[in-house]
Amino acid sequence: MEQNLPAIILVNPQMGENIGAAARAMANFGLSDLRLVNPRDGWPNEAATANASGALDIMPPVQIFNNTADALKDCHIVYATTARPRDMRKKVFTPKQAAQEISGKAQKTAILFGGERAGLDNDDIALAHHIISVPINPDFWSINLAQTVLLVSYELKQANDETPPFVLPTGDSDPATHEQLNELMIRLEQELESHYFFRSPDMRPTMARNIRNIFSRAEMTEQEVRTFHGIISALIGNKEK
Amino acid sequence: MEQNLPAIILVNPQMGENIGAAARAMANFGLSDLRLVNPRDGWPNEAATANASGALDIMPPVQIFNNTADALKDCHIVYATTARPRDMRKKVFTPKQAAQEISGKAQKTAILFGGERAGLDNDDIALAHHIISVPINPDFWSINLAQTVLLVSYELKQANDETPPFVLPTGDSDPATHEQLNELMIRLEQELESHYFFRSPDMRPTMARNIRNIFSRAEMTEQEVRTFHGIISALIGNKEK
Repeated sequence: MEQNLPAIILVNPQMGENIGAAARAMANFGLSDLRLVNPRDGWPNEAATANASGALDIMPPVQIFNNTADALKDCHIVYATTARPRDMRKKVFTPKQAAQEISGKAQKTAILFGGERAGLDNDDIALAHHIISVPINPDFWSINLAQTVLLVSYELKQANDETPPFVLPTGDSDPATHEQLNELMIRLEQELESHYFFRSPDMRPTMARNIRNIFSRAEMTEQEVRTFHGIISALIGNKEK
Repeated sequence: MEQNLPAIILVNPQMGENIGAAARAMANFGLSDLRLVNPRDGWPNEAATANASGALDIMPPVQIFNNTADALKDCHIVYATTARPRDMRKKVFTPKQAAQEISGKAQKTAILFGGERAGLDNDDIALAHHIISVPINPDFWSINLAQTVLLVSYELKQANDETPPFVLPTGDSDPATHEQLNELMIRLEQELESHYFFRSPDMRPTMARNIRNIFSRAEMTEQEVRTFHGIISALIGNKEK
């Protein structure tokens, strides 16, 4: 099932913190094939483990290679991420565009990310079929390695995601029915009427409609309607004292 | 011009590293209004400066507040980011959906982000009109604070971005004309003919067409066409030795 999920390949990564943060970002969006080419501080790496927040424990073991070509051996399509202009002629995709291309393919895809200081060198980019470049503020284009991995992982998940937008539960209370809201509005109008809220009979329909609109937009729960009845009762009671 | 760009408000942030990384992510996507509510280690913060990679230097000074309500005083619309279900009834947006809502509004928007350990507390969420929740792997939903800021900043930029997809320059050489490519193909076919590449006259048109297709897909530059003429010359020369 996972065999066609893209491999994330960090070439000459320097800081373990960034390797760990990249692994965490991958896990956040369901990726798990992490490969390292010549990590500066070796592997395993304590800073990587600390920054992964447990992500490395739920992924297959990270694979280590001596050169980029070896890391790509089982891959069919290779993308190289770079922010800098290069004297090479390849198609350039945004992360979103690349994710749409990749999600339609049955072949194994690899995405190369360069080290923190200089990015990918030209020999590594020459191994790639296409370029991924994040559309970034031209006045501040120094983007962190793990942040780039996050954006690509996020867009890959977005491209594959056919579930409806994520909605949080609203607690134990159901949404109020139209009738429940209507009863509240009728009661409120009656109380406002008896407390001389509507200055003239002519104004009443418009003012009542405006009030209803406010409550309609609020999409209240049954509990909230009950709460509002309590508010009205309390205000009335206070006034009568 | 910048007055309607959203404010990013970190509530009770703990690690300066994450504050700096958040600032860097904001700068990457053109945001600059960073506010902190009760940063644990005070402000300014050395770790934040180091991790911002210069982003804090190009932004207005970070504003510090004692409580969330004070930080929100000039804001009209407030979003709270949270990954956990809450017993509150508010509209929940993905970062992309929220960015589309925000980019259409003239009012000042604020986006609240909770601290590393526990996120936003319910009192802070109650100050918000809406929720932003990143659609994340339910099996690994521990997302880094700065990574969440990055995703929201990225989607805000995407929603406002009307520029065409970003394409890297291809160096000094222009794309080859059809004529230049055609001359290369004719020469290649002639050389292949004289070197007995085409096994039978029947096969030649199909084989030649297949070769042309390869070169057409490559979308070569003038320089690359010249290079390929050199390759042919070299190969011919080697064969004649």
